[in-house]
Amino acid sequence: MRFKVAVLGATGMVGQKFIQLLENHPWFEISALAASEKRVGKPYGEEVNWLVSANVPECVRDMEMVPMDPKHVDADIVFSALPSNVAREVEAAFAKEGFVVASNASAFRMEEDVPLVIPEVNPDHLQLVETQKKKRGWDGFIVTNPNCTTIMLVISLKPLMDLGLKTVRVASMQALSGAGYPGVPSMAITDNVIPFIKGEEEKVETEPLKLLGKFDGKKVNPAPIKVSASCHRVPVIDGHTEAVWVEFDRDVSVEEAIAAFESLKPLDLPTSPEKVIIVRSEPDRPQPRLDRDEGNGMSVVVGRVRKDSNGLKYIVMGHNTVRGAAGASILNAELMAKNGMI
Amino acid sequence: MRFKVAVLGATGMVGQKFIQLLENHPWFEISALAASEKRVGKPYGEEVNWLVSANVPECVRDMEMVPMDPKHVDADIVFSALPSNVAREVEAAFAKEGFVVASNASAFRMEEDVPLVIPEVNPDHLQLVETQKKKRGWDGFIVTNPNCTTIMLVISLKPLMDLGLKTVRVASMQALSGAGYPGVPSMAITDNVIPFIKGEEEKVETEPLKLLGKFDGKKVNPAPIKVSASCHRVPVIDGHTEAVWVEFDRDVSVEEAIAAFESLKPLDLPTSPEKVIIVRSEPDRPQPRLDRDEGNGMSVVVGRVRKDSNGLKYIVMGHNTVRGAAGASILNAELMAKNGMI
Amino acid sequence: MRFKVAVLGATGMVGQKFIQLLENHPWFEISALAASEKRVGKPYGEEVNWLVSANVPECVRDMEMVPMDPKHVDADIVFSALPSNVAREVEAAFAKEGFVVASNASAFRMEEDVPLVIPEVNPDHLQLVETQKKKRGWDGFIVTNPNCTTIMLVISLKPLMDLGLKTVRVASMQALSGAGYPGVPSMAITDNVIPFIKGEEEKVETEPLKLLGKFDGKKVNPAPIKVSASCHRVPVIDGHTEAVWVEFDRDVSVEEAIAAFESLKPLDLPTSPEKVIIVRSEPDRPQPRLDRDEGNGMSVVVGRVRKDSNGLKYIVMGHNTVRGAAGASILNAELMAKNGMI
Amino acid sequence: MRFKVAVLGATGMVGQKFIQLLENHPWFEISALAASEKRVGKPYGEEVNWLVSANVPECVRDMEMVPMDPKHVDADIVFSALPSNVAREVEAAFAKEGFVVASNASAFRMEEDVPLVIPEVNPDHLQLVETQKKKRGWDGFIVTNPNCTTIMLVISLKPLMDLGLKTVRVASMQALSGAGYPGVPSMAITDNVIPFIKGEEEKVETEPLKLLGKFDGKKVNPAPIKVSASCHRVPVIDGHTEAVWVEFDRDVSVEEAIAAFESLKPLDLPTSPEKVIIVRSEPDRPQPRLDRDEGNGMSVVVGRVRKDSNGLKYIVMGHNTVRGAAGASILNAELMAKNGMI
Repeated sequence: MRFKVAVLGATGMVGQKFIQLLENHPWFEISALAASEKRVGKPYGEEVNWLVSANVPECVRDMEMVPMDPKHVDADIVFSALPSNVAREVEAAFAKEGFVVASNASAFRMEEDVPLVIPEVNPDHLQLVETQKKKRGWDGFIVTNPNCTTIMLVISLKPLMDLGLKTVRVASMQALSGAGYPGVPSMAITDNVIPFIKGEEEKVETEPLKLLGKFDGKKVNPAPIKVSASCHRVPVIDGHTEAVWVEFDRDVSVEEAIAAFESLKPLDLPTSPEKVIIVRSEPDRPQPRLDRDEGNGMSVVVGRVRKDSNGLKYIVMGHNTVRGAAGASILNAELMAKNGMI
Repeated sequence: MRFKVAVLGATGMVGQKFIQLLENHPWFEISALAASEKRVGKPYGEEVNWLVSANVPECVRDMEMVPMDPKHVDADIVFSALPSNVAREVEAAFAKEGFVVASNASAFRMEEDVPLVIPEVNPDHLQLVETQKKKRGWDGFIVTNPNCTTIMLVISLKPLMDLGLKTVRVASMQALSGAGYPGVPSMAITDNVIPFIKGEEEKVETEPLKLLGKFDGKKVNPAPIKVSASCHRVPVIDGHTEAVWVEFDRDVSVEEAIAAFESLKPLDLPTSPEKVIIVRSEPDRPQPRLDRDEGNGMSVVVGRVRKDSNGLKYIVMGHNTVRGAAGASILNAELMAKNGMI
Repeated sequence: MRFKVAVLGATGMVGQKFIQLLENHPWFEISALAASEKRVGKPYGEEVNWLVSANVPECVRDMEMVPMDPKHVDADIVFSALPSNVAREVEAAFAKEGFVVASNASAFRMEEDVPLVIPEVNPDHLQLVETQKKKRGWDGFIVTNPNCTTIMLVISLKPLMDLGLKTVRVASMQALSGAGYPGVPSMAITDNVIPFIKGEEEKVETEPLKLLGKFDGKKVNPAPIKVSASCHRVPVIDGHTEAVWVEFDRDVSVEEAIAAFESLKPLDLPTSPEKVIIVRSEPDRPQPRLDRDEGNGMSVVVGRVRKDSNGLKYIVMGHNTVRGAAGASILNAELMAKNGMI
Repeated sequence: MRFKVAVLGATGMVGQKFIQLLENHPWFEISALAASEKRVGKPYGEEVNWLVSANVPECVRDMEMVPMDPKHVDADIVFSALPSNVAREVEAAFAKEGFVVASNASAFRMEEDVPLVIPEVNPDHLQLVETQKKKRGWDGFIVTNPNCTTIMLVISLKPLMDLGLKTVRVASMQALSGAGYPGVPSMAITDNVIPFIKGEEEKVETEPLKLLGKFDGKKVNPAPIKVSASCHRVPVIDGHTEAVWVEFDRDVSVEEAIAAFESLKPLDLPTSPEKVIIVRSEPDRPQPRLDRDEGNGMSVVVGRVRKDSNGLKYIVMGHNTVRGAAGASILNAELMAKNGMI
């Protein structure tokens, strides 16, 4: 089981995280790093402003960057860490030419024929690719993972669906790395909270309906829930913390909810954590600095599950550039590799 | 109009803020600073770890601290910056001996015969002091102001009451100064969020019902609303930011809500801000570092008022040690002074 | 005594600070705000990302920005908050056309015929403008103030010159605002120190020699001292802290040094602080957050003056965008106004 | 090669780091955790406020804490993470009863007969224990490691000794973890620098002379150098950054210094890093957040080596609770184990 993988948008924050997670991957080997025109031909190690650890991994240090063009990329899987506006055209070009594109960009997420997938939540949605290929006449296809705030939330909501989930309100306290680099100026966020992230609330309010929706063999029928989000930036490096209120169509106890959280099964995939959801019982957890590396950043940590007059409330936290971005795409690719889709 | 005022718990964070706000007060003059036993007899300037500006104000620098005992305090009004456990006994002792106690402590807030007051919200509740004095046989009385998170919230809720407010959910992002000094260790909060503040959610869920309740001449009847809170500490020095969801018994437009917010009238008191609520139209405001000093810290700033499937959502922010603590007590005292209650 | 003043580069961090300090200035009135081409014609309040307080001052909110061209600017004094590369051409153009340019940029600082001035340190250097005008054939002239790290240092060194100062070593811990906006990315500096600021050490090692040099009627003879600097960025919003080692040609006591620091006289100018240098005796001062606003940001605060095997060491701290930038230019302009140079 | 080890002061910040580093140690196994009276008998996992990772390691979670008394401790080596005032009595008691005490406390560091050791710098000083045992009549002995700021500095100075090092000036920017827990209040250090750490400069100015001194078979003769320190706290979690000026008795080039730094040999011990000193050539390194985990926190990173009028200057950075505390003690113990001293 060995696949050649390329990273599109390799020098950005999420691109760096892709490389870090792929460095010693048992199935995937980096065969190409694609970047914008001005970086083409230059060694990755010289071009990147490497920020996720002390040193650029050796395996890519001297790799010359290639254009974001299917003709120049030799790979079985293409991971996309592109900004959404660039992603639309580039990802389509790769899919058309037969590549499997595992994308972290938002460009195609809500398209009817594009799977938006969390392996532990809705793996069956991957079947949408057949429709996609047929409808678009592509040899390859695009599979997407959700927004970084959405994914933590939805992993925690999935087990609550069977308990009769109806409405969700979420207030996020999002990490700086989510804005990329240079991203949020230090002068804007030091000793401060910025109660706004452009486009974020719209994503958090719509993506869960697709993720938790039912695939009927042809299309995904949105889940019959309502989600309302308020998104805020806080001075934290990594780890999105979310305060969640959930209402059900019946009375649900704290114990039932915890049992449901803990019942979410991990998959047998290299990047899959031992526990998908870790429920902590301390009164003051999860905390991003302490808990974001659980399961190598792929576990989601839940705490403070408590009764509310109209349902329950709890905190969910996860690593936004691992489970919330690069790790999410890689897990999707692993699932597809295992399923024989690649 | 000149009154002698004392500060109980003068060396703590809130005590310092009392002194700072009273330094050049037109009506009030600091006549005594009371502190715990070990500090008695020592000059304030030598004992305090002054943190709210460069220098201890001259007017108190050499003032010798006195015991927290009515016999040793010469004052018309006693401001209490005490921790709740100490406040219970000490404040009662002062009230019994005829002092007017304006307390920021939580000890007596929810007692049936003790006014919990925000001057712009429920000034008529002050009349409860008659019951209090009679029932307890005290010559003086205690008047309290709410918790720092409650007060921002309730100032924003007051104008919404007439629009048919029913339920409130609030996620707070609270400043470090709210925990006093030494308070939150830097090792606990740097690059972190702590999603828990002991006792806070209980206060935020109960105090608004009393504050927004109706005084019927004898007692306060709690407002018929429900409040649910999730409280979090973030790395911000001053200024509590709160994400609020409100539901009404009818459809309320963003414009109606904004008009209501802006209709809340300031009082004609020295510490009263020009605008009680400032509504900002930018997509990314209020922000604590930029907006916390509006109205010298006494204004509350609202922004991002937006429609939600089940009502509205918005952000409210205010200075937690000014409007949320010392300034709140002082404003209460000013109202009482003007009303002839002192 | 009323002068019309323009600000070049009005939307940047230092430009904002100029406007804030000029808002209620007794002598100066803002008559024009000049900015880059794309902003010309637009109201200042709409274009600026105002970060230094809650609101853009009313006096400039609706002011339409003009090009950085002498023909479009009506003013007696032009304050320059331009980046150095732009400053070279633009400032010269204004000086040529007869304007008095008070510049915070580094472009002309070290030119032989351009005064580099701190009013309390070397006011006589202003006489260089006669040479400048003659040599360059300009109707106006340029006067500069030093780099933000240099100025705190040199204010503290000036009184030590008479004690036989020989060598200086300085390690700076510089604030974020010094890098402007967007400036330092939060991802780069949160939980971090960056031990490098481009071009800074060179400025700190050369400017003091000119500032402390003797004007002989024709030119400035550099002071016979050596300065060595190590410059570092730390997560502080405003206020540069500097650890200084000084060696003398004789033995100098702590008391002598303190007496010298305190002897530096303030000038009788609107922006001049009551004390130029404040010496604090506490073991842990100065601290930027507590001390940066002393003298409205124009005082420099010294502490921890202590004996060293080869001289003395101490800490000096000052507000980098006030005393270290906009305030420095304004003080220079005030001195020139008083001297009748404008 | 298996030894039983105990940790004294196991619940503090350094105690936690000891446990973390010992968790999977190939030679050492934790046999006892000693703590103050009130914690005795309680499981470690319930008592500790674990801050260095998500979870208390399993191997100690249920371990009942014992008194800091030789009679209650079964171990070959005792690691001391005690505060200095407690260390004096407790460490002596253990050494007297035959234990090998590897201490991070400052209590005995400067005693004439107690080795102060960095294995790569002065391993021969360990021979002092013979004198110590004889003189004090102890069956065991105490070996110490230096202060966290000293150790980074001295590792960088050791290779410079042969180049004729004469004087050293160091300005430190020290991390929060160095102050333990609760340590520095967030209200004191957010948006701030504290230019003072009690007792620190004295240690940094004296310990290097002993560490770099020559052992003549009987005692250590202090190195003929002078060290002057200015110590400052900055808002960084882990990693002390130090700006260093060095003067020599001859001219030393940057290349010579770099070659010397890189020539310092690692030891063949489990905790020893591959490179003792990593020299980085980028203009803006080392940085604590990026470089502190090099060599699992045991490497020291040097950068910005540059010529100065009177010698050289450079930056050195290392992980203060690993190389600067727990890791230093463990490396000392490993060296003693290998030498057959235990």
